[in-house]
Amino acid sequence: MRDFSADHRWLSINTATLRGAGRLDTIIEACARHGIRAISPWRDQVAAIGLERTAALVRTHGLALSGYCRGGMFPAPDAAGRQAALDDNRRAVDEAKTLDAACLVLVVGALPGALAGAALTKDLAGARRQVHDGIAATLEYAKEAGMPLAIEPLHPMYAADRACVNTLEQALDLCDALDPAQGGALGVANVDRAALGVAVDVYHVWWDPKLEAQISRAGKSRLLAFHVCDWLAKTRDLLEDRGMMGDGVIEIPKIRAWVEAAGFTGYSEVEIFSSLDWWKRPADEVLATCISRHRSVV
Amino acid sequence: MRDFSADHRWLSINTATLRGAGRLDTIIEACARHGIRAISPWRDQVAAIGLERTAALVRTHGLALSGYCRGGMFPAPDAAGRQAALDDNRRAVDEAKTLDAACLVLVVGALPGALAGAALTKDLAGARRQVHDGIAATLEYAKEAGMPLAIEPLHPMYAADRACVNTLEQALDLCDALDPAQGGALGVANVDRAALGVAVDVYHVWWDPKLEAQISRAGKSRLLAFHVCDWLAKTRDLLEDRGMMGDGVIEIPKIRAWVEAAGFTGYSEVEIFSSLDWWKRPADEVLATCISRHRSVV
Repeated sequence: MRDFSADHRWLSINTATLRGAGRLDTIIEACARHGIRAISPWRDQVAAIGLERTAALVRTHGLALSGYCRGGMFPAPDAAGRQAALDDNRRAVDEAKTLDAACLVLVVGALPGALAGAALTKDLAGARRQVHDGIAATLEYAKEAGMPLAIEPLHPMYAADRACVNTLEQALDLCDALDPAQGGALGVANVDRAALGVAVDVYHVWWDPKLEAQISRAGKSRLLAFHVCDWLAKTRDLLEDRGMMGDGVIEIPKIRAWVEAAGFTGYSEVEIFSSLDWWKRPADEVLATCISRHRSVV
Repeated sequence: MRDFSADHRWLSINTATLRGAGRLDTIIEACARHGIRAISPWRDQVAAIGLERTAALVRTHGLALSGYCRGGMFPAPDAAGRQAALDDNRRAVDEAKTLDAACLVLVVGALPGALAGAALTKDLAGARRQVHDGIAATLEYAKEAGMPLAIEPLHPMYAADRACVNTLEQALDLCDALDPAQGGALGVANVDRAALGVAVDVYHVWWDPKLEAQISRAGKSRLLAFHVCDWLAKTRDLLEDRGMMGDGVIEIPKIRAWVEAAGFTGYSEVEIFSSLDWWKRPADEVLATCISRHRSVV
């Protein structure tokens, strides 16, 4: 297991962590100021300043992208909606490629309409079939582009509205069904990074009694991203009350040890949705805390 | 699958659904007024009016108890705390027996201190070991008393503070480990009701991609209770914003069909924690709605 105590070279900042800090250019400059080597930006933040400007800033500051957030949201009430989702995912693959991201993270979607507050169906199995088909179609395009797709299993409390892939086991079953040969993203067998893998976010999976076994099953080639934050024992909001590493109950070093034992050598990406706390604080305070906690409790 | 549309003979009311309606005697009288045949009371509600008075009211109104809520909460920071939990579980078994409940429901507990807002440890695996040991110790006593224990897997969002058994598969693994012969609660092999089984609450398990398979695995003897309510697409509180059946996204009839295909023939017990809505309404309105929804969407 890598020693993180001496520096923060393996820290990546998911830019959603700094949603309170302004536009993406401001966020990138703050990251650079703190010696951050990698980020994972969100598409809406990129769109707000432009893809080319984002790419230029990333180059200027020598940043790596531990991932790009996000593709997915495949289920839709009709064929036109499903096609629109596929088209949008192709654009996401292209953007991820332009930014040289390590992977495109997929938040796969769930019951159509639920995210807007009114589910149009309760057919969870149907949504899961649409996710299967949507990833299959996107995977062909992503392989040609050489961009690995990382399915992010989301906590079961998001099964209705955000993602109906809710355990690592379920995500890996999808990987094995759609990418049985673990074909490399460049179209050739590649034991280092499969074309289709997973993003393991401790917030979503920490509770899972099968977590260690499924991380081992995933192995180096399927483990495309590792996200950290913390689960607050008193969580006040289902979406925007994630904790800073060390402030909650997740045994982050234990999970990182499992991930690294399976061969993962990438960044620990901090992703904290926190309208109730961290989004209210100055970017410099958030980043200094991320760095300190990365060295001490990740 | 049983037809519920003509009457509500298989409806049970978990008395937590009427927490806004006053004391347990008031709640029981309201249930009797609506022709409810079964309830599942909580220990604090029983304690407030007395066990003997509760037993007398249950007899007077000819009520069955689909379950008794609840035992569990096994993990503790020290041996004295664990012993206190075992002692309390024995008292819960005794009370359930006095009330002739179908089972004692176990909410097994999680990280010591977390429920009070400050977890004393992050050792989730350790908490799970304590749960294993606590159930093992309680099971011996419960078998002698002839009271089946029903492990209730709780939604993963309660893994820190309420229950570290979070999937039906995990609960059934515990059952198989501790009660491999599915010994009847009366100490003899009993294919009808195992001494140790599960309470399946759709709120906690609806998202699980392995749900159908695990319900089938449980079978008639392990399926000791079936709880219904609904998952609201916009859930505002992690604990007290459960929906009335039909107001959310859970395919309740599909899950009931699976449970009944596995051999379950008991009550559909309505358990709605809803400080944000249903606890504010009059008991008669809540019960009339439960009955109507039981006939139409359960």
